[in-house]
Amino acid sequence: MNTLKDRCAIVGVGETKYTRDSGRTELSMAVEAAKNAIADAGLTTADIDGMVRFTADSTSHSELAAGLGIPWLRYYSELGPLGGAACGLVAQAALAVSHGMANNVLVFRSVNGRSGQRYGSGVVTTRRGQKGSAFTEPYGLLVPGQSSALRIRRHMHEFGTTVRQLGAVCVTFRKHACMNPRAIMHGRPITLEDYETSKMFFDPLRIFDCALEADGACAFVVSSAEAAADMKQPPVLISNATQCMPAEQGRSERGWDDSGGARMAPELFGGAGITPQDIDVIGFYDHFSPVIITKLEDYGFCPRGEGGPFVEEGRIEAGAELPVNTSGGHLSEAYMQGMNQIIEVVRQLRHRSYAQVEDAEFGLVDSGDGSGALVLRR
Amino acid sequence: MNTLKDRCAIVGVGETKYTRDSGRTELSMAVEAAKNAIADAGLTTADIDGMVRFTADSTSHSELAAGLGIPWLRYYSELGPLGGAACGLVAQAALAVSHGMANNVLVFRSVNGRSGQRYGSGVVTTRRGQKGSAFTEPYGLLVPGQSSALRIRRHMHEFGTTVRQLGAVCVTFRKHACMNPRAIMHGRPITLEDYETSKMFFDPLRIFDCALEADGACAFVVSSAEAAADMKQPPVLISNATQCMPAEQGRSERGWDDSGGARMAPELFGGAGITPQDIDVIGFYDHFSPVIITKLEDYGFCPRGEGGPFVEEGRIEAGAELPVNTSGGHLSEAYMQGMNQIIEVVRQLRHRSYAQVEDAEFGLVDSGDGSGALVLRR
Repeated sequence: MNTLKDRCAIVGVGETKYTRDSGRTELSMAVEAAKNAIADAGLTTADIDGMVRFTADSTSHSELAAGLGIPWLRYYSELGPLGGAACGLVAQAALAVSHGMANNVLVFRSVNGRSGQRYGSGVVTTRRGQKGSAFTEPYGLLVPGQSSALRIRRHMHEFGTTVRQLGAVCVTFRKHACMNPRAIMHGRPITLEDYETSKMFFDPLRIFDCALEADGACAFVVSSAEAAADMKQPPVLISNATQCMPAEQGRSERGWDDSGGARMAPELFGGAGITPQDIDVIGFYDHFSPVIITKLEDYGFCPRGEGGPFVEEGRIEAGAELPVNTSGGHLSEAYMQGMNQIIEVVRQLRHRSYAQVEDAEFGLVDSGDGSGALVLRR
Repeated sequence: MNTLKDRCAIVGVGETKYTRDSGRTELSMAVEAAKNAIADAGLTTADIDGMVRFTADSTSHSELAAGLGIPWLRYYSELGPLGGAACGLVAQAALAVSHGMANNVLVFRSVNGRSGQRYGSGVVTTRRGQKGSAFTEPYGLLVPGQSSALRIRRHMHEFGTTVRQLGAVCVTFRKHACMNPRAIMHGRPITLEDYETSKMFFDPLRIFDCALEADGACAFVVSSAEAAADMKQPPVLISNATQCMPAEQGRSERGWDDSGGARMAPELFGGAGITPQDIDVIGFYDHFSPVIITKLEDYGFCPRGEGGPFVEEGRIEAGAELPVNTSGGHLSEAYMQGMNQIIEVVRQLRHRSYAQVEDAEFGLVDSGDGSGALVLRR
């Protein structure tokens, strides 16, 4: 029973420049991205009456409202943990709009993720309050990259996945970044040979396998589909939204088909009235390259264990059958915690991407380790 | 357009014992309160597929899910700041349920608020990330009680509100606590003379005017009204939910009629299809006694400036025309950040309170400084 289907739309998107050292406050970047998103929708700040934020953000609702000159919000919400927030916040915004708790909800994320606090560093900042990590940290699993490395090792063992297949993901996304002037890695193409000789971070993961820590802000506006029909941009409808959160103690025991993506897929596509074959373009949360291979399997785009050959055959490249992360993704555009994937898929469904997928109608976006997902529709 | 009206219900409530020193972890208390709420609804933990939490809580979704033996959640969310969370989380749970994102959503709060971190102490813990306090802290406004004292001084100046009227609120709620064995202040009645000679905290606010810091946990379950009809308890329907968040810079300039309660009231009652006169029982978030006087005015139960006489005449006592905080509230039951008010109003609408309001049909609950509100219905 997905009563959310196509009732709401993303009507405006905005962002700041993505950099490695913004030299600005996160509040200032949030204001810029929000203003861009509101203007993109053809709205004014006075139209915004709801706001949802990453719990991890340093900017509060009331500060951003003040920065935008909005005296009162009728709806506000937030979501953690870090990776799972972006798609979940879109769901919250859509739920609020569809019930009239607000008319136009601003979703934002602003972070100096490179010049400020770096999530990938050895300081365990992202697991605050998650006491389960007490069972893994003594074994050296201090940052997400280390767990990701162990997980893809298992995939290699079971299915024969190779390092060159990881490299194919990285080279492909870098190629997409080179088509996208907003990407931090624009103009810096890499080859598979560059990949294979690059710095090792968490064996088998190299520097290119890891999300590109960045400074910047993203924002978008969610409104009703009815209102969206009269707005400036072609509306991008929210056909479905799902979430998935595992009990912490179960994590280490989970099999491949117990992943968030695999759990959500039937309800996600079923509720939108489509199958994976209807998806034209994908924005996967790529904190590390291996998840692209496993998520293609999780969501049913290829059988279990065949994600490696799928990417190696070039099938996720712009112009191929199922383009993934056409802006460069976290690996090569900027690590904006899933927000830039949503913005890129919106641009694809408006038919205005730098790496446009012809006649794109349906897009899939996911957050974190399969902790939230959206089907978007032109 | 309130399409949420009566579509969802609070079907089970649970809590731990409220104490001044629990000697337990917050996770352990969260598990106990959650199990009590689930059992109260006649459900099992396997029925819970969504969970919403206070951002300020130390217990994460995944930890509580693990503690309850729930392998996966289909919906999760959270909300800050502290005071505004309780009613807003009920709204989020109801929105998710009404759209089929989850069937039975657990709302919880667990805190060692007296033996652990004390929110009312001089350590500025509740304003993390709210940079606007940089403009007030240098003037000595370090904790919420200090701002509340200034605000009620203004009310006294403008409307002639008296210290004895504040005392009437405190004595009334203590009387309610003495009817409620769960209240920390059960068995410890106070007189107006006790009040007038008690310790001064923030002139004119005395110890009895301030929320009773406490250890404990509260939880409840939100399900669809349809499912609720077949459950163990008389369902308490969610007739409407509203939120209100001001831009920070506007706070100091706000007039009385610019309060959250005054802003929300027309939509809150209108959307539920009632007027303030239909409300039989109230659970106001009473972090400090003065807000009871101003909230009665804000929500339209008496004209502006007449809240003081209203409480002094005994009109908010159990058995009188408009009973408020019949469990003792934050002042005399326990400071559970608005969660215990919701539980008490649910009990009133089930006709099972220790201070039962005869034939109670409609209840009002609010959160924080008018940052969220619910109309509940038998």
